[in-house]
Amino acid sequence: VERALERGLVDEASSDLSCLNGCGLVLLALPLNQLVEPKAALLQALPPEALVLDTGSVKQPVLAAWQPQLPRFVGCHPMAGTAEAGVEAGVAGLFQGRPWVITPSGQESTADLEMARALGQDLGSTVLECDPAEHDRAVAFISHMPVLVSAALLQSAAAAEPQGLLQALASSGFADTTRIGGGNPELGSLMARCNREAVQQALAAYSKALHHLAEQVEGQDWTGLQQALASAQAVRP
Amino acid sequence: VERALERGLVDEASSDLSCLNGCGLVLLALPLNQLVEPKAALLQALPPEALVLDTGSVKQPVLAAWQPQLPRFVGCHPMAGTAEAGVEAGVAGLFQGRPWVITPSGQESTADLEMARALGQDLGSTVLECDPAEHDRAVAFISHMPVLVSAALLQSAAAAEPQGLLQALASSGFADTTRIGGGNPELGSLMARCNREAVQQALAAYSKALHHLAEQVEGQDWTGLQQALASAQAVRP
Repeated sequence: VERALERGLVDEASSDLSCLNGCGLVLLALPLNQLVEPKAALLQALPPEALVLDTGSVKQPVLAAWQPQLPRFVGCHPMAGTAEAGVEAGVAGLFQGRPWVITPSGQESTADLEMARALGQDLGSTVLECDPAEHDRAVAFISHMPVLVSAALLQSAAAAEPQGLLQALASSGFADTTRIGGGNPELGSLMARCNREAVQQALAAYSKALHHLAEQVEGQDWTGLQQALASAQAVRP
Repeated sequence: VERALERGLVDEASSDLSCLNGCGLVLLALPLNQLVEPKAALLQALPPEALVLDTGSVKQPVLAAWQPQLPRFVGCHPMAGTAEAGVEAGVAGLFQGRPWVITPSGQESTADLEMARALGQDLGSTVLECDPAEHDRAVAFISHMPVLVSAALLQSAAAAEPQGLLQALASSGFADTTRIGGGNPELGSLMARCNREAVQQALAAYSKALHHLAEQVEGQDWTGLQQALASAQAVRP
């Protein structure tokens, strides 16, 4: 708290929930499990007249947990961040040019949605709006499932021999491919837990694609493999 | 050729094989397929008294193709390079601090191995020496198989809906994980072809690791998943 004040990140800081009294806009930047399973004390401390936004990377279970309790809750997913955590990781312009996703369930007022959009715009983000279920499916494919794909690569390489040689030869390509798999394990597990069905569907689609490539290797279909790799190259954003 | 001379990359350049006449040291920097299946004209043009090194990323089939033909062939894998290709991609210091792997089969003279090492050292590389089969297994795990893992991710994400949203939300994590899968398709296919058995073994080990993570998601074993991700994080080089 002192350090956040010192760095000028905040004007006021407190871990006392009574500080929420009289707030008109609350942005819940909490670990995903506390968004999916809200603490009773926090629910009670939030003024019912406040507009409340969250920052969770999964939206359906968050909306299901909060909207019945808070009439002005709007689901929000600002997609910015670094590999760092903690108060020292706060940097100016973090949200600049990054997606700021709003996921209306249909219960929100147009005025509240407009305020959620305006907040993202003021931070320089690119504001997007989509259905909560579509959001969860999309992040399963581009974020949650890839964590597992990348982690499995680390695990299989770590079990291979000779280990010393593998480590000596691992290059920037391997480092890139394993970056997200070597990230925060609690977050990786939470994302899979809170978005389980979409992650399972994404894993099934992924396994099928990998299995097809493995079959091409086994069947020595090098023309087919090269075509498949060319199609992968073509779709890389 | 003119451009290479112009850039000062070479003192002389020619596509006429007769330029090999009288050469004492030849470094074969050729596409992998031309290293695995040497062209007869090249084999004939190489002076039998020359020390010949290659740069292929697979070593057993290259050694099998060249050593019976050339008494002084030494297998070599300088692990440097960029995503760029062609004469404009040549940069000073490319090999600085990068692995320069020599893979003796046992047929080489100590003097020739020493010369191959000295070349790597002169370029500022870290010279390593290992068995050709061990080399091929190691690169299968840290380079060749990961290309397929990464390509499958691109393919499965490209087939998911809604595609526009996926592309809008794909962030640096997705870009990192799919970088090598979106690389040169001809090279990716060639690496799998020339190192098929090791790539198949690596794919089998990888699929097993991913399957285990998928089982944890399906079985909702979140403690186990978090532990698995923590172990992955711990082994990341």
